[in-house]
Amino acid sequence: MAYTPATEELIRALQGLPGIGSRSAARMALHLLERDTESAQWLNNALAEALNKVHRCPSCRTLTEQVECDICQDSERDASSLCVVVNDADRAAIEMSKQFQGHYFVLHGVLSPIEGVGPEQLAIFDLIDKLKNNDVSEVIFVLDDQMESEATVFYITEQLKAIDVRCSRVTLMHLKNGNLDQAESRHLVSALTNRQEITLEQE
Amino acid sequence: MAYTPATEELIRALQGLPGIGSRSAARMALHLLERDTESAQWLNNALAEALNKVHRCPSCRTLTEQVECDICQDSERDASSLCVVVNDADRAAIEMSKQFQGHYFVLHGVLSPIEGVGPEQLAIFDLIDKLKNNDVSEVIFVLDDQMESEATVFYITEQLKAIDVRCSRVTLMHLKNGNLDQAESRHLVSALTNRQEITLEQE
Repeated sequence: MAYTPATEELIRALQGLPGIGSRSAARMALHLLERDTESAQWLNNALAEALNKVHRCPSCRTLTEQVECDICQDSERDASSLCVVVNDADRAAIEMSKQFQGHYFVLHGVLSPIEGVGPEQLAIFDLIDKLKNNDVSEVIFVLDDQMESEATVFYITEQLKAIDVRCSRVTLMHLKNGNLDQAESRHLVSALTNRQEITLEQE
Repeated sequence: MAYTPATEELIRALQGLPGIGSRSAARMALHLLERDTESAQWLNNALAEALNKVHRCPSCRTLTEQVECDICQDSERDASSLCVVVNDADRAAIEMSKQFQGHYFVLHGVLSPIEGVGPEQLAIFDLIDKLKNNDVSEVIFVLDDQMESEATVFYITEQLKAIDVRCSRVTLMHLKNGNLDQAESRHLVSALTNRQEITLEQE
Protein backbone atom coordinates (compact mmCIF):
# COMPACT_ATOMS: atom_id res chain seq x y z
CA MET A 1 0.00 0.00 0.00
CA ALA A 2 1.47 3.33 -1.08
CA TYR A 3 -0.38 5.55 1.42
CA THR A 4 -1.89 5.22 4.88
CA PRO A 5 -5.26 3.38 5.15
CA ALA A 6 -7.21 6.60 5.85
CA THR A 7 -5.51 8.30 2.88
CA GLU A 8 -6.34 5.34 0.60
CA GLU A 9 -9.97 5.46 1.79
CA LEU A 10 -10.12 9.21 1.05
CA ILE A 11 -8.70 8.57 -2.45
CA ARG A 12 -11.43 5.97 -3.09
CA ALA A 13 -14.14 8.30 -1.76
CA LEU A 14 -12.94 11.18 -3.98
CA GLN A 15 -13.44 8.93 -7.02
CA GLY A 16 -17.17 9.24 -6.32
CA LEU A 17 -16.95 12.80 -7.67
CA PRO A 18 -17.96 13.11 -11.36
CA GLY A 19 -15.00 13.04 -13.76
CA ILE A 20 -12.42 12.13 -11.11
CA GLY A 21 -10.24 9.09 -11.78
CA SER A 22 -7.76 7.42 -9.45
CA ARG A 23 -4.83 9.74 -10.30
CA SER A 24 -6.79 12.96 -9.83
CA ALA A 25 -8.25 11.55 -6.62
CA ALA A 26 -4.77 10.75 -5.27
CA ARG A 27 -3.53 14.24 -6.21
CA MET A 28 -6.55 15.80 -4.47
CA ALA A 29 -6.22 13.68 -1.32
CA LEU A 30 -2.52 14.46 -0.94
CA HIS A 31 -3.09 18.14 -1.64
CA LEU A 32 -5.70 18.26 1.14
CA LEU A 33 -3.70 16.26 3.68
CA GLU A 34 -0.19 17.54 2.89
CA ARG A 35 -0.59 21.14 1.98
CA ASP A 36 -4.02 22.46 2.67
CA THR A 37 -5.69 20.94 5.73
CA GLU A 38 -7.53 24.25 6.14
CA SER A 39 -9.32 23.72 2.80
CA ALA A 40 -9.90 20.09 3.77
CA GLN A 41 -11.56 21.16 7.02
CA TRP A 42 -13.64 23.73 5.16
CA LEU A 43 -14.77 21.15 2.62
CA ASN A 44 -15.62 18.71 5.39
CA ASN A 45 -17.75 21.28 7.23
CA ALA A 46 -19.44 22.51 4.04
CA LEU A 47 -20.27 18.98 2.95
CA ALA A 48 -21.68 18.00 6.36
CA GLU A 49 -23.74 21.21 6.47
CA ALA A 50 -25.10 20.73 2.93
CA LEU A 51 -25.96 17.07 3.57
CA ASN A 52 -27.75 18.09 6.73
CA LYS A 53 -29.70 21.05 5.34
CA VAL A 54 -30.32 20.53 1.62
CA HIS A 55 -33.22 18.35 0.52
CA ARG A 56 -35.70 18.18 -2.32
CA CYS A 57 -38.80 20.35 -2.25
CA PRO A 58 -41.67 17.85 -1.75
CA SER A 59 -43.71 19.63 -4.40
CA CYS A 60 -41.25 20.23 -7.28
CA ARG A 61 -38.02 18.44 -6.23
CA THR A 62 -35.91 21.62 -6.46
CA LEU A 63 -33.04 21.53 -3.95
CA THR A 64 -34.01 23.67 -0.98
CA GLU A 65 -33.21 24.27 2.68
CA GLN A 66 -36.77 25.21 3.58
CA VAL A 67 -39.84 23.00 3.99
CA GLU A 68 -40.94 24.07 0.51
CA CYS A 69 -38.75 25.87 -2.08
CA ASP A 70 -38.90 29.66 -2.72
CA ILE A 71 -40.60 29.22 -6.08
CA CYS A 72 -43.39 26.95 -4.80
CA GLN A 73 -43.98 29.39 -1.93
CA ASP A 74 -44.12 32.45 -4.22
CA SER A 75 -47.78 33.30 -4.88
CA GLU A 76 -46.79 35.70 -7.67
CA ARG A 77 -45.48 32.88 -9.87
CA ASP A 78 -47.76 31.47 -12.55
CA ALA A 79 -48.91 28.07 -11.26
CA SER A 80 -50.57 27.25 -14.59
CA SER A 81 -47.23 26.82 -16.35
CA LEU A 82 -44.84 24.02 -15.40
CA CYS A 83 -41.29 23.62 -16.68
CA VAL A 84 -39.82 20.10 -16.52
CA VAL A 85 -36.02 19.99 -16.26
CA VAL A 86 -33.38 17.30 -15.72
CA ASN A 87 -31.55 18.80 -12.77
CA ASP A 88 -31.24 21.71 -10.41
CA ALA A 89 -28.48 23.34 -12.47
CA ASP A 90 -30.82 23.57 -15.46
CA ARG A 91 -33.55 25.02 -13.27
CA ALA A 92 -31.05 27.58 -11.91
CA ALA A 93 -29.96 28.47 -15.47
CA ILE A 94 -33.56 29.07 -16.55
CA GLU A 95 -34.16 31.18 -13.43
CA MET A 96 -31.10 33.29 -14.24
CA SER A 97 -32.47 33.94 -17.75
CA LYS A 98 -35.58 35.49 -16.10
CA GLN A 99 -37.62 34.25 -19.08
CA PHE A 100 -39.91 31.93 -17.18
CA GLN A 101 -42.38 32.89 -14.45
CA GLY A 102 -44.05 29.55 -13.80
CA HIS A 103 -43.25 26.59 -11.60
CA TYR A 104 -40.74 23.77 -12.12
CA PHE A 105 -40.49 20.04 -11.78
CA VAL A 106 -36.96 18.65 -11.43
CA LEU A 107 -36.56 15.04 -12.60
CA HIS A 108 -33.00 14.58 -11.22
CA GLY A 109 -32.03 12.45 -14.17
CA VAL A 110 -33.35 10.94 -17.39
CA LEU A 111 -34.77 7.47 -18.04
CA SER A 112 -31.91 5.02 -18.37
CA PRO A 113 -32.86 1.35 -17.93
CA ILE A 114 -29.20 0.33 -18.17
CA GLU A 115 -28.37 2.48 -15.12
CA GLY A 116 -31.50 1.40 -13.27
CA VAL A 117 -33.21 4.78 -13.68
CA GLY A 118 -36.91 4.23 -14.30
CA PRO A 119 -40.04 6.40 -13.89
CA GLU A 120 -40.01 5.88 -10.12
CA GLN A 121 -36.50 7.28 -9.66
CA LEU A 122 -37.55 10.38 -11.60
CA ALA A 123 -40.85 10.66 -9.69
CA ILE A 124 -42.73 10.76 -13.00
CA PHE A 125 -45.89 9.41 -11.34
CA ASP A 126 -45.77 12.28 -8.83
CA LEU A 127 -45.52 14.64 -11.80
CA ILE A 128 -48.58 13.05 -13.43
CA ASP A 129 -50.53 13.30 -10.13
CA LYS A 130 -49.50 16.94 -9.82
CA LEU A 131 -50.80 17.65 -13.31
CA LYS A 132 -54.05 15.81 -12.62
CA ASN A 133 -54.75 17.60 -9.35
CA ASN A 134 -53.57 21.14 -10.09
CA ASP A 135 -54.59 23.76 -12.59
CA VAL A 136 -51.57 23.40 -14.85
CA SER A 137 -52.47 24.24 -18.42
CA GLU A 138 -49.00 24.06 -20.03
CA VAL A 139 -46.01 21.79 -19.52
CA ILE A 140 -42.70 22.89 -21.08
CA PHE A 141 -39.98 20.27 -21.34
CA VAL A 142 -36.54 21.87 -21.34
CA LEU A 143 -34.09 19.03 -21.95
CA ASP A 144 -31.11 18.47 -24.22
CA ASP A 145 -31.31 16.50 -27.48
CA GLN A 146 -29.72 13.27 -26.25
CA MET A 147 -31.53 10.00 -26.90
CA GLU A 148 -32.31 9.40 -23.21
CA SER A 149 -33.80 12.90 -22.92
CA GLU A 150 -35.99 12.37 -25.98
CA ALA A 151 -37.14 9.02 -24.57
CA THR A 152 -37.95 10.66 -21.23
CA VAL A 153 -40.04 13.39 -22.87
CA PHE A 154 -41.78 10.76 -25.01
CA TYR A 155 -42.55 8.59 -21.97
CA ILE A 156 -44.02 11.48 -19.99
CA THR A 157 -46.10 12.88 -22.87
CA GLU A 158 -47.51 9.39 -23.46
CA GLN A 159 -48.79 9.47 -19.85
CA LEU A 160 -50.25 12.93 -20.40
CA LYS A 161 -52.56 11.96 -23.26
CA ALA A 162 -55.47 11.47 -20.85
CA ILE A 163 -54.95 14.88 -19.25
CA ASP A 164 -56.03 18.17 -20.77
CA VAL A 165 -52.67 19.91 -20.85
CA ARG A 166 -50.66 21.66 -23.58
CA CYS A 167 -47.12 20.32 -23.97
CA SER A 168 -44.14 22.17 -25.47
CA ARG A 169 -40.59 21.08 -26.04
CA VAL A 170 -37.48 23.23 -25.83
CA THR A 171 -34.37 21.45 -27.06
CA LEU A 172 -31.11 22.95 -25.92
CA MET A 173 -27.91 21.60 -27.41
CA HIS A 174 -25.93 23.32 -24.67
CA LEU A 175 -28.00 22.00 -21.82
CA LYS A 176 -26.08 19.00 -20.57
CA ASN A 177 -25.42 18.14 -16.97
CA GLY A 178 -26.16 21.67 -15.87
CA ASN A 179 -23.36 23.13 -17.93
CA LEU A 180 -25.49 26.05 -19.05
CA ASP A 181 -24.05 29.32 -17.81
CA GLN A 182 -25.07 32.95 -18.09
CA ALA A 183 -23.51 33.40 -21.54
CA GLU A 184 -25.43 30.44 -22.89
CA SER A 185 -28.67 31.61 -21.37
CA ARG A 186 -29.17 33.83 -24.44
CA HIS A 187 -29.79 30.63 -26.42
CA LEU A 188 -32.31 29.70 -23.77
CA VAL A 189 -34.21 32.97 -24.15
CA SER A 190 -34.79 32.45 -27.87
CA ALA A 191 -35.51 28.74 -27.35
CA LEU A 192 -38.17 29.46 -24.72
CA THR A 193 -39.78 32.07 -26.97
CA ASN A 194 -39.81 29.74 -29.98
CA ARG A 195 -40.80 26.57 -28.18
CA GLN A 196 -42.50 23.85 -30.19
CA GLU A 197 -45.82 22.47 -29.16
CA ILE A 198 -46.01 18.68 -28.92
CA THR A 199 -49.18 17.33 -30.50
CA LEU A 200 -50.63 14.60 -28.31
CA GLU A 201 -52.90 12.10 -30.00
CA GLN A 202 -55.81 12.03 -27.58
CA GLU A 203 -56.84 8.53 -26.56
CA MET B 1 -28.32 33.31 -5.92
CA ALA B 2 -28.81 30.25 -8.11
CA TYR B 3 -28.57 27.61 -5.39
CA THR B 4 -29.27 27.35 -1.67
CA PRO B 5 -26.72 28.97 0.71
CA ALA B 6 -25.33 25.59 1.88
CA THR B 7 -24.99 24.44 -1.75
CA GLU B 8 -23.17 27.67 -2.70
CA GLU B 9 -20.82 27.19 0.27
CA LEU B 10 -20.11 23.61 -0.82
CA ILE B 11 -19.37 24.84 -4.37
CA ARG B 12 -16.87 27.38 -2.97
CA ALA B 13 -15.25 24.74 -0.73
CA LEU B 14 -14.87 22.29 -3.65
CA GLN B 15 -12.87 24.96 -5.51
CA GLY B 16 -10.15 24.38 -2.91
CA LEU B 17 -9.42 21.08 -4.69
CA PRO B 18 -6.52 21.29 -7.17
CA GLY B 19 -7.63 21.84 -10.77
CA ILE B 20 -11.29 22.46 -9.90
CA GLY B 21 -12.87 25.67 -11.20
CA SER B 22 -16.30 27.09 -10.43
CA ARG B 23 -18.15 25.07 -13.09
CA SER B 24 -16.63 21.73 -12.13
CA ALA B 25 -17.28 22.55 -8.48
CA ALA B 26 -20.95 23.30 -9.19
CA ARG B 27 -21.29 20.06 -11.17
CA MET B 28 -19.69 18.10 -8.31
CA ALA B 29 -21.81 19.74 -5.60
CA LEU B 30 -25.06 19.09 -7.47
CA HIS B 31 -24.02 15.53 -8.28
CA LEU B 32 -23.40 14.87 -4.58
CA LEU B 33 -26.58 16.54 -3.32
CA GLU B 34 -28.98 15.56 -6.12
CA ARG B 35 -27.98 12.12 -7.18
CA ASP B 36 -25.45 10.55 -4.91
CA THR B 37 -25.85 11.53 -1.26
CA GLU B 38 -24.39 8.11 -0.40
CA SER B 39 -21.07 9.07 -2.03
CA ALA B 40 -21.30 12.47 -0.36
CA GLN B 41 -21.69 10.85 3.05
CA TRP B 42 -18.81 8.49 2.31
CA LEU B 43 -16.57 11.39 1.24
CA ASN B 44 -17.53 13.32 4.35
CA ASN B 45 -16.66 10.41 6.64
CA ALA B 46 -13.42 9.59 4.81
CA LEU B 47 -12.30 13.21 4.91
CA ALA B 48 -13.07 13.58 8.63
CA GLU B 49 -11.29 10.30 9.38
CA ALA B 50 -8.20 11.24 7.34
CA LEU B 51 -8.02 14.72 8.88
CA ASN B 52 -8.25 13.15 12.31
CA LYS B 53 -5.72 10.34 11.81
CA VAL B 54 -3.17 11.38 9.20
CA HIS B 55 -0.25 13.57 10.26
CA ARG B 56 3.39 14.06 9.34
CA CYS B 57 6.01 11.73 10.80
CA PRO B 58 7.99 13.97 13.18
CA SER B 59 11.25 12.54 11.89
CA CYS B 60 10.84 12.49 8.08
CA ARG B 61 7.51 14.26 7.41
CA THR B 62 6.03 11.28 5.56
CA LEU B 63 2.25 11.13 6.02
CA THR B 64 1.48 8.50 8.65
CA GLU B 65 -1.20 7.40 11.10
CA GLN B 66 1.29 6.14 13.68
CA VAL B 67 3.52 8.11 16.05
CA GLU B 68 6.41 7.53 13.65
CA CYS B 69 6.12 6.25 10.06
CA ASP B 70 6.76 2.61 9.05
CA ILE B 71 10.03 3.45 7.32
CA CYS B 72 11.53 5.37 10.25
CA GLN B 73 10.52 2.50 12.54
CA ASP B 74 12.04 -0.18 10.30
CA SER B 75 15.49 -1.11 11.68
CA GLU B 76 16.33 -3.01 8.48
CA ARG B 77 16.35 0.18 6.38
CA ASP B 78 19.67 1.86 5.69
CA ALA B 79 19.76 4.97 7.90
CA SER B 80 22.96 6.20 6.25
CA SER B 81 21.15 7.06 3.01
CA LEU B 82 18.52 9.80 2.89
CA CYS B 83 16.27 10.58 -0.07
CA VAL B 84 14.82 14.11 -0.23
CA VAL B 85 11.50 14.36 -2.11
CA VAL B 86 8.91 17.06 -2.73
CA ASN B 87 5.81 15.22 -1.59
CA ASP B 88 4.36 12.00 -0.28
CA ALA B 89 3.30 10.84 -3.73
CA ASP B 90 6.92 10.96 -4.92
CA ARG B 91 8.01 9.06 -1.82
CA ALA B 92 5.31 6.45 -2.51
CA ALA B 93 6.44 6.17 -6.16
CA ILE B 94 10.05 5.55 -5.11
CA GLU B 95 8.90 2.97 -2.57
CA MET B 96 6.92 1.17 -5.26
CA SER B 97 10.03 0.99 -7.46
CA LYS B 98 11.77 -0.96 -4.63
CA GLN B 99 15.07 0.62 -5.71
CA PHE B 100 15.80 2.52 -2.53
CA GLN B 101 16.33 1.01 0.92
CA GLY B 102 17.22 4.13 2.89
CA HIS B 103 15.19 6.77 4.70
CA TYR B 104 13.27 9.77 3.31
CA PHE B 105 12.71 13.40 4.03
CA VAL B 106 9.54 14.89 2.56
CA LEU B 107 9.70 18.66 1.92
CA HIS B 108 5.97 19.08 1.15
CA GLY B 109 6.71 21.69 -1.49
CA VAL B 110 9.55 23.61 -3.14
CA LEU B 111 10.91 27.07 -2.36
CA SER B 112 8.62 29.69 -3.85
CA PRO B 113 9.01 33.19 -2.39
CA ILE B 114 6.05 34.41 -4.47
CA GLU B 115 3.77 31.87 -2.76
CA GLY B 116 5.29 32.49 0.65
CA VAL B 117 7.08 29.14 0.75
CA GLY B 118 10.48 29.59 2.41
CA PRO B 119 12.94 27.21 4.14
CA GLU B 120 10.78 27.16 7.28
CA GLN B 121 7.67 25.88 5.48
CA LEU B 122 9.76 23.06 4.00
CA ALA B 123 11.44 22.33 7.36
CA ILE B 124 14.85 22.65 5.71
CA PHE B 125 16.49 23.57 9.03
CA ASP B 126 15.11 20.35 10.56
CA LEU B 127 16.66 18.49 7.65
CA ILE B 128 20.05 20.15 8.27
CA ASP B 129 19.84 19.30 12.00
CA LYS B 130 18.95 15.72 11.12
CA LEU B 131 22.02 15.47 8.88
CA LYS B 132 24.25 17.01 11.54
CA ASN B 133 23.08 14.71 14.33
CA ASN B 134 22.68 11.40 12.54
CA ASP B 135 25.01 9.13 10.65
CA VAL B 136 23.77 10.00 7.18
CA SER B 137 26.55 9.66 4.63
CA GLU B 138 24.56 10.26 1.45
CA VAL B 139 21.70 12.58 0.52
CA ILE B 140 19.88 11.90 -2.75
CA PHE B 141 17.66 14.67 -4.08
CA VAL B 142 14.87 13.25 -6.26
CA LEU B 143 13.05 16.27 -7.68
CA ASP B 144 11.83 17.30 -11.11
CA ASP B 145 13.71 19.73 -13.36
CA GLN B 146 11.57 22.82 -12.74
CA MET B 147 13.29 26.06 -11.77
CA GLU B 148 11.87 26.06 -8.23
CA SER B 149 13.07 22.48 -7.69
CA GLU B 150 16.57 23.37 -8.88
CA ALA B 151 16.60 26.40 -6.59
CA THR B 152 15.47 24.24 -3.66
CA VAL B 153 18.25 21.69 -4.24
CA PHE B 154 20.79 24.52 -4.59
CA TYR B 155 19.63 26.17 -1.37
CA ILE B 156 19.86 22.92 0.63
CA THR B 157 23.27 21.89 -0.78
CA GLU B 158 24.63 25.35 0.09
CA GLN B 159 23.66 24.65 3.72
CA LEU B 160 25.33 21.24 3.54
CA LYS B 161 28.81 22.52 2.64
CA ALA B 162 29.84 22.48 6.29
CA ILE B 163 28.67 18.89 6.80
CA ASP B 164 30.55 15.82 5.65
CA VAL B 165 27.89 14.29 3.45
CA ARG B 166 27.82 13.10 -0.16
CA CYS B 167 25.03 14.67 -2.26
CA SER B 168 23.51 13.22 -5.43
CA ARG B 169 20.83 14.55 -7.71
CA VAL B 170 18.24 12.55 -9.61
CA THR B 171 16.25 14.64 -12.06
CA LEU B 172 12.99 13.14 -13.17
CA MET B 173 11.12 14.85 -15.97
CA HIS B 174 8.03 12.84 -15.11
CA LEU B 175 8.07 13.61 -11.44
CA LYS B 176 5.67 16.49 -11.03
CA ASN B 177 3.05 16.82 -8.33
CA GLY B 178 3.22 13.12 -7.55
CA ASN B 179 2.14 12.14 -11.04
CA LEU B 180 4.67 9.32 -11.20
CA ASP B 181 2.90 5.99 -11.50
CA GLN B 182 4.06 2.40 -11.72
CA ALA B 183 4.74 2.56 -15.46
CA GLU B 184 6.96 5.59 -15.03
CA SER B 185 8.84 4.00 -12.16
CA ARG B 186 11.05 2.26 -14.75
CA HIS B 187 12.53 5.69 -15.52
CA LEU B 188 13.09 6.08 -11.81
CA VAL B 189 15.03 2.82 -11.56
CA SER B 190 17.56 3.87 -14.18
CA ALA B 191 17.70 7.42 -12.80
CA LEU B 192 18.48 6.19 -9.28
CA THR B 193 21.17 3.88 -10.63
CA ASN B 194 22.76 6.64 -12.69
CA ARG B 195 22.44 9.44 -10.17
CA GLN B 196 24.84 12.35 -10.45
CA GLU B 197 26.98 13.40 -7.56
CA ILE B 198 26.82 17.09 -6.65
CA THR B 199 30.28 18.50 -5.97
CA LEU B 200 30.13 20.79 -2.97
CA GLU B 201 32.88 23.39 -2.71
CA GLN B 202 33.95 22.93 0.89
CA GLU B 203 34.10 26.17 2.83
